Amino acid sequence: MADKVLIYSRFPKTMMARFAERFELLDTGGKPALEVFSADELGGIRAMLTAGGSPLGADTMDLFPKLGAIVCYGTGYDGVDLTAAAARNIAVGHSPGANAASVADIAMTLMLATTRRILVADQYVRSGDWAGSKQSPMMRPQAGMPGRRIGVYGMGEIGRKIAARCAAFESEVGYFSRSKYDLPYQYFPTLEALADWCSVLMIAVRAGAETQHVVNADILGRLGEHGYVVNISRGSVIDERALVAALSDKTIAGAGLDVYEREPHAPDALTELPNVVFAPHIGGHTLESHVAMQNCVLANLTAFFAGEPLPYRVKSA
Amino acid sequence: MADKVLIYSRFPKTMMARFAERFELLDTGGKPALEVFSADELGGIRAMLTAGGSPLGADTMDLFPKLGAIVCYGTGYDGVDLTAAAARNIAVGHSPGANAASVADIAMTLMLATTRRILVADQYVRSGDWAGSKQSPMMRPQAGMPGRRIGVYGMGEIGRKIAARCAAFESEVGYFSRSKYDLPYQYFPTLEALADWCSVLMIAVRAGAETQHVVNADILGRLGEHGYVVNISRGSVIDERALVAALSDKTIAGAGLDVYEREPHAPDALTELPNVVFAPHIGGHTLESHVAMQNCVLANLTAFFAGEPLPYRVKSA
Repeated sequence: MADKVLIYSRFPKTMMARFAERFELLDTGGKPALEVFSADELGGIRAMLTAGGSPLGADTMDLFPKLGAIVCYGTGYDGVDLTAAAARNIAVGHSPGANAASVADIAMTLMLATTRRILVADQYVRSGDWAGSKQSPMMRPQAGMPGRRIGVYGMGEIGRKIAARCAAFESEVGYFSRSKYDLPYQYFPTLEALADWCSVLMIAVRAGAETQHVVNADILGRLGEHGYVVNISRGSVIDERALVAALSDKTIAGAGLDVYEREPHAPDALTELPNVVFAPHIGGHTLESHVAMQNCVLANLTAFFAGEPLPYRVKSA
Repeated sequence: MADKVLIYSRFPKTMMARFAERFELLDTGGKPALEVFSADELGGIRAMLTAGGSPLGADTMDLFPKLGAIVCYGTGYDGVDLTAAAARNIAVGHSPGANAASVADIAMTLMLATTRRILVADQYVRSGDWAGSKQSPMMRPQAGMPGRRIGVYGMGEIGRKIAARCAAFESEVGYFSRSKYDLPYQYFPTLEALADWCSVLMIAVRAGAETQHVVNADILGRLGEHGYVVNISRGSVIDERALVAALSDKTIAGAGLDVYEREPHAPDALTELPNVVFAPHIGGHTLESHVAMQNCVLANLTAFFAGEPLPYRVKSA
């Protein structure tokens, strides 16, 4: 009989296909598990698959007395209460780096689309305004990439890939992270100093309680009227109200966002703005990235059911 | 008295401001010169400023018996009949490389926006479809950049910058151009071979009679159903009818276009398509790029009126 895996978050069926070949999946579709399955069924669950951003605390863990492994699909595990998991001897796994290139690439896509105003440009051509020689203030020349100062907040695998790509665009790259690394980019000891220096802030920091709303009105103000912010990390890192205000009153020039505080909801006050490019959390959403993330999930689940340590275990868990 | 310069193409006044400080500008606004100025006024013109893509043949040159210099704003000079200019002892100048980074960056922007479907993504968030969990077939995972085969057609300054940027995205880069260079990219001896190999064709070739419609139905067919074409060179390089057909019947997956056969007109059959990202010929349209191009224009005009050779002279002219 196949080992059982509870699917805790809402995932498209296509993303679960490879797991279904190997395990018996109890798919909650993202609903509370007790609404979909009986307490008896849940009692036998030893492993679950979750999206790293889905809140998963002690109360939930206690619904599954035999739970031994929480496997996150993707790099993030910010929704999982690691302390509660450790106290219950539950291993937490993820897919480190599997989606780093894909996420770095959506960061670049959002930065370029925002700074070169590609939504406005596309609409200017499609509407016939270009053919009609209508003036478009939004289409005035903007600063380009060579010499632009790009600040990368967080220098993990995604941050490094963003930095390498930006350097190829002949931009200057600076970064702030907890540690200074042996990297060819200027290190700033605080986020404030980075924001003072750069005109584009790329948020690539691992999300958690200590990064909650650190990109606030003050940081946005330091980017200035020609400044941009791009977030591909987690919505929680930006104070979304402060962001709406900064974009509305032109404190900053624009933003590129793949993540939001309350996904899949992006506030109307945000989505009404013309100087933002939005994506529906598709950073890791490429074919290669999904294959790589699924490889990590399969390796974690297979090892767990074989009684071995998770090969891609969250380090601090 | 300031030297007179005829403005042959339609340019925004802001782009001419630095020239107006040094020269007396006779601005046609892009209209036939004789509609705006008397034959007598035109008879005294020794230098003109043009957009490289504007048709400028022998008949036009003969309206200006004293014409000694045609200065193109930008890198291109495909509209200028170089043979006719040489026969009349008219020097032709341009701004080589001044906009190369800016144009390469719009190529990258269009490629990323098209392959990651950023227009669809943005609309999916703005419309509330994401919040409503509506399915969107266009949002299915697509191939990303790592390992992607990018074919660069033309290896001048812009092509090289595109290639270097793509390499930083962990893509494989191949190219076709008249010459094979000592570059770390795979060389293909024909455009057909490059199209067979790559999934994204980046058109960065210098336009001219010999490149007219070389990207035709056959080349597009070789890119295949997962293939993309990005054009930042000139509209004339692509057979636009064949492109509309290939995009409509899904012979290829999508396109990113900054240039068109009859600018500023993009055909309705093209602009109705959802799998294309359009820009209104803004490749060189960044602040730094304009400053660099204007520097070349000023250097060319200053040298010409001082009786010296143009420092940025078109080589074949």
